[in-house]
Amino acid sequence: MEIKVMANILDKNDQLAAEVNAHLSRRGIFTLNLLGSPGSGKTALLERTIAALKDELKLAVIEGDLFTDKDAARIARQGVPVVQINTGGGCHLDANMVKGVLASLDLDGLDLLIIENVGNLVCPAEFNIGEDAKATVLSVTEGEDKPLKYPLVFKQAGAVVVNKIDLLPYTSFDLAAATEDIASINPQVAIFPASCRTGEGLEGWYGWLRARVAAKKAAAAKGE
Amino acid sequence: MEIKVMANILDKNDQLAAEVNAHLSRRGIFTLNLLGSPGSGKTALLERTIAALKDELKLAVIEGDLFTDKDAARIARQGVPVVQINTGGGCHLDANMVKGVLASLDLDGLDLLIIENVGNLVCPAEFNIGEDAKATVLSVTEGEDKPLKYPLVFKQAGAVVVNKIDLLPYTSFDLAAATEDIASINPQVAIFPASCRTGEGLEGWYGWLRARVAAKKAAAAKGE
Repeated sequence: MEIKVMANILDKNDQLAAEVNAHLSRRGIFTLNLLGSPGSGKTALLERTIAALKDELKLAVIEGDLFTDKDAARIARQGVPVVQINTGGGCHLDANMVKGVLASLDLDGLDLLIIENVGNLVCPAEFNIGEDAKATVLSVTEGEDKPLKYPLVFKQAGAVVVNKIDLLPYTSFDLAAATEDIASINPQVAIFPASCRTGEGLEGWYGWLRARVAAKKAAAAKGE
Repeated sequence: MEIKVMANILDKNDQLAAEVNAHLSRRGIFTLNLLGSPGSGKTALLERTIAALKDELKLAVIEGDLFTDKDAARIARQGVPVVQINTGGGCHLDANMVKGVLASLDLDGLDLLIIENVGNLVCPAEFNIGEDAKATVLSVTEGEDKPLKYPLVFKQAGAVVVNKIDLLPYTSFDLAAATEDIASINPQVAIFPASCRTGEGLEGWYGWLRARVAAKKAAAAKGE
């Protein structure tokens, strides 16, 4: 009984996610679902990414949080359009929430929509929200055992940013082991060790995003 | 419909949690539900706590994880009884899972049972699992905005350990602001800034645990 209800919820969500994706894909917008633990540095990565790409790409952001609009306020200061979703305690975004705010965003000419999910390594990985790809942020201060302990969020990611490498000298984090474990779960994933504080290592991440945006535009132009 | 099912699940869980608590309380065992983000340092706090208290108190541990028994292996090396619960992807422990493993633990003469929940600041806070108190670990590398963004897990805690203060010089974490925010959510809570790497600041935490264990024993002796 409980399982059947959950299956219905996931089916319904997948259907709404497909609608959201179709709506954005028609406009050639590449949509990224950004995942990670609380405090892994998702918003800091967004701030760096916006600063690096906003002169060449038109970006918008959807911020997901249980409560508060602290992250949306940080993003708004970067000068890009941002919409806040508050889940009211809910542990993840779902496709219906994203669908509900699309009308608040000007999608004309948009290249890249980044949706920052609720800080949580578990539940957000189970719900598609209309994205073309997921990216996961893991910070070195969380420990290198996290990929094997929370495999789904790493298995589904197109890219993993291993953040806070400026703190490597002060932690026992084993970067080689973490990279190996992530690759064992997801051999196709692009892994970018980086620091959102210093900016080190982020060029590869920007390049990954640029390539995805360009591929999406080309597909839209061909009417795919 | 969905809401009704969720209410039923929570009611059923609360009933099982009361059974688990009664079973442990009859034996005078103080039971702690340990919460925090992935990588906040819950297992490291357990290792320190066991080392500090195992000569004066009889301890046991239940480890909750989605997959793997990495944490249980770490605890077993400390020489205390430990039982692993794998949720198989589930984002929190529930009372039924704890009830299911109680028979695997020797409860005779036990003083303190610590249950380490799944690393997640959201869902575990919604499910009682038979504990007498919750404690939440927040690490300074997560950022001081977390209490206001994830209030429930701080509101319900009897104690908060603000971990990794050895990394304060290398982060922009504002300890005063974090402490103030936690106290605004939960004026009664005991807050212990500490480092599980260096051991600094943990004496207060050990004292809090000792006092809770003693109070539980006294209540059991009076037949409460």
